[in-house]
Amino acid sequence: MDQLTQQLQFIREIDKLKGVLRRSYIMDGSRRENSAEHSWHLALMALTLAEHANEPVDVSRVVKMVLIHDIVEIDAGDTFLYDQEGNATKADREQRAAARIFGLLPDPQQDELTALWQEFEARETADSRFANALDRLMPLLHNYYNQGKPWQAHGVTRDQVIDMVQHMAEGSTTLWDYAFNLLNDAVDKGYLAP
Amino acid sequence: MDQLTQQLQFIREIDKLKGVLRRSYIMDGSRRENSAEHSWHLALMALTLAEHANEPVDVSRVVKMVLIHDIVEIDAGDTFLYDQEGNATKADREQRAAARIFGLLPDPQQDELTALWQEFEARETADSRFANALDRLMPLLHNYYNQGKPWQAHGVTRDQVIDMVQHMAEGSTTLWDYAFNLLNDAVDKGYLAP
Repeated sequence: MDQLTQQLQFIREIDKLKGVLRRSYIMDGSRRENSAEHSWHLALMALTLAEHANEPVDVSRVVKMVLIHDIVEIDAGDTFLYDQEGNATKADREQRAAARIFGLLPDPQQDELTALWQEFEARETADSRFANALDRLMPLLHNYYNQGKPWQAHGVTRDQVIDMVQHMAEGSTTLWDYAFNLLNDAVDKGYLAP
Repeated sequence: MDQLTQQLQFIREIDKLKGVLRRSYIMDGSRRENSAEHSWHLALMALTLAEHANEPVDVSRVVKMVLIHDIVEIDAGDTFLYDQEGNATKADREQRAAARIFGLLPDPQQDELTALWQEFEARETADSRFANALDRLMPLLHNYYNQGKPWQAHGVTRDQVIDMVQHMAEGSTTLWDYAFNLLNDAVDKGYLAP
């Protein structure tokens, strides 16, 4: 199979990410969000908020990272942040998914995207710490603007949210401060249990 | 208003792109595609197909360009490629949209994204010619994999499609050759009128 045919098979395959639903709703509350449009939204966040990263970041790499960070969900599904059982098997399911899906690409490209995805997951570089901070901030904004719909549906409390998202501060203390105030405001408004 | 608050208002506003529906269907045919997930898909195309551009391109700029190229549709709507009336007023509607939506961002950023969007529209640089080629190829793939559903619904013929998409060759003759064969195959299979 030639290079272009392989690449277009990958492009066709990842269309399925548009069918993977997240717990969060789009901001008008009309329907749940899918992981493809979420990835687009995060990329725009990376483009516009990079100045707030704790350390200098390579914006293009962060954009690329958030664009591909959820592709494994095509096979592994979206695991809710507060689902303990799901999170126990998540790494394993996602590794297999990465091998299959990035494996559709020709050789140097599959290695590059796999490495970038692993870097995102490991949170050990400035770029990945910032990418993860954005990925944690985004659902807070969605849930806040939807009056806490998913928080209430799953009985999540403020302390649980803080516990799961506070590593945002490793990527950006500015964004974490913003998020912390937003969560307190959500409690005041009755969107989120204290 | 501080810089971060302005930027997050932009992020909140562009969530509406998830509600702008295109004529094309996602590849499993289950529903129409929205412009946000389409932009994500194009960005992945830019990342994986850049080697097929006629001239050397700056992949990061092409990615950025396709990520923002449809944001004006939040106000101006998606104009179907074969809608003559809609296309007569499109430029004007989109200019106003760009001013309002990119105008939510702080100063250097609004100018940068506006210029990038104008560059995409003008198709006068290598990056924008390639970005436009991707934007023309993508719906052909969608329509082909959906057995020509939107082509048939709107009574579009092969010659009309060729007329509207052949500037793809300015960005990539490789992709254009691929598309040309795909269209002929679509006619053979009865997806597209000759």
